[in-house]
Amino acid sequence: MVDSCGECESCRKGEEQYCHHGHTGTYAAIDRYGQYTQGGYSTHIVVTEDFVVRIPDGIALDAAAPLLCAGITTYSPLRHWGAAPGKKVVVVGLGGLGHMAVKLAHAMGAEVTVLSQTLKKKEDGLKLGADHYYATSDPETFTTLANTFDLIVNTVNAKIDLNAYLSLLAVDGTLVNVGAPPEALPVQVFSLIPHRRSFAGSAIGGIRETQEMLDFCAEHRITPEIELISANQIDEAWERVLASDVRYRFVIDIGTMGKE
Amino acid sequence: MVDSCGECESCRKGEEQYCHHGHTGTYAAIDRYGQYTQGGYSTHIVVTEDFVVRIPDGIALDAAAPLLCAGITTYSPLRHWGAAPGKKVVVVGLGGLGHMAVKLAHAMGAEVTVLSQTLKKKEDGLKLGADHYYATSDPETFTTLANTFDLIVNTVNAKIDLNAYLSLLAVDGTLVNVGAPPEALPVQVFSLIPHRRSFAGSAIGGIRETQEMLDFCAEHRITPEIELISANQIDEAWERVLASDVRYRFVIDIGTMGKE
Repeated sequence: MVDSCGECESCRKGEEQYCHHGHTGTYAAIDRYGQYTQGGYSTHIVVTEDFVVRIPDGIALDAAAPLLCAGITTYSPLRHWGAAPGKKVVVVGLGGLGHMAVKLAHAMGAEVTVLSQTLKKKEDGLKLGADHYYATSDPETFTTLANTFDLIVNTVNAKIDLNAYLSLLAVDGTLVNVGAPPEALPVQVFSLIPHRRSFAGSAIGGIRETQEMLDFCAEHRITPEIELISANQIDEAWERVLASDVRYRFVIDIGTMGKE
Repeated sequence: MVDSCGECESCRKGEEQYCHHGHTGTYAAIDRYGQYTQGGYSTHIVVTEDFVVRIPDGIALDAAAPLLCAGITTYSPLRHWGAAPGKKVVVVGLGGLGHMAVKLAHAMGAEVTVLSQTLKKKEDGLKLGADHYYATSDPETFTTLANTFDLIVNTVNAKIDLNAYLSLLAVDGTLVNVGAPPEALPVQVFSLIPHRRSFAGSAIGGIRETQEMLDFCAEHRITPEIELISANQIDEAWERVLASDVRYRFVIDIGTMGKE
């Protein structure tokens, strides 16, 4: 995010991501001057100081990059819905977003459970900070864990059986989607009513909160797991993204652009 | 509600409606002794004192009856999601639940908007305390009111286009269903993410809150609009319920039972 109106209620609260006039994304967005933003593919970016964050000492620039998307996108809902000691948090999906959600929720003191299709990444998940790890392909997972959790952060972009996941929430629990599947998800109202559950969505975070997240990561020595690639590896990396074969984010060394 | 376990976290918090072992409904529920509850159709009910409420002076018994369902079912979510001065609340549907939601939200000081299929009951709605009244059959309603409300209480039991209603919520707004259609409602995740909106459900209220609601109604001189009928009018009343021809609750004078 590189711009917003600065004047609406959300902007005044420091939640520019919810700007009433729509914020300007870092890339592939049309900015206020009618130009497409180019994000990290630019050689230079001119941006108001209000949208600049400070990378703390101890976080390398390559590892910082995914914090500004996967990091803040999971940090913000974890904070907003109160991940903390005594709280039980589920992370659905252990990809780029999910692995950051696990690290952050664990550092906030919550008890963290990962739900993934299989147990393939279980060892990874526990190393990242998860206390428990279950496979959603095992139907017993949903009976064992029914009515248990305060917060579920769903990072999956595909159409999942949302009602099954809602059934895992305790009274007043919230399932928040940070992944956005293109298809609508059918919600049975009776998945919500008898336990006053909520289904919510959350988008990145404000600039102040992004700085807070960076400082939190520095303090807790949290960085994303990345694989640094050069520009001529982009096609190959993309194939691996499609095959879910990335642990857990590719970062392009932009200094290699045009140097093949 | 006439019973609950009394020991779980929800019961200890006075939210017996969310009892982890399931509460016992006043009628058509199987109680802890294996018997069907008969509710208002019983001649006598034996119930623990913890599930008895006091009808305040000034609320007639016939008018009190719907408060214990439509009243508390709308009072509880209005309180939980903070209906108060400065808040903009929508009530969807002006039936038995909806007309109570309007009276209560108005008495709590919120700015109240009714959304109904047509403007047929507009005069009624404004008399009940609504500040604004719009027809959902007019597509302009949804553009005029986009991104406006803090809370939407949906009392409609039918399958509505939920995404259209979600689009009316401001940042951090909640749409809460108290009506429960049998069909699942398709939710576009992008109806939630860009404004951190929530879709929630709520069930009646706890006993302490039910007493609070009764006292609130007495203080603000709120009673439901009822039509008192005798037992031999039940069939006719049922036909009128099916035709949505009731303003706004039938109450059966149970003293007329078996006296035809």
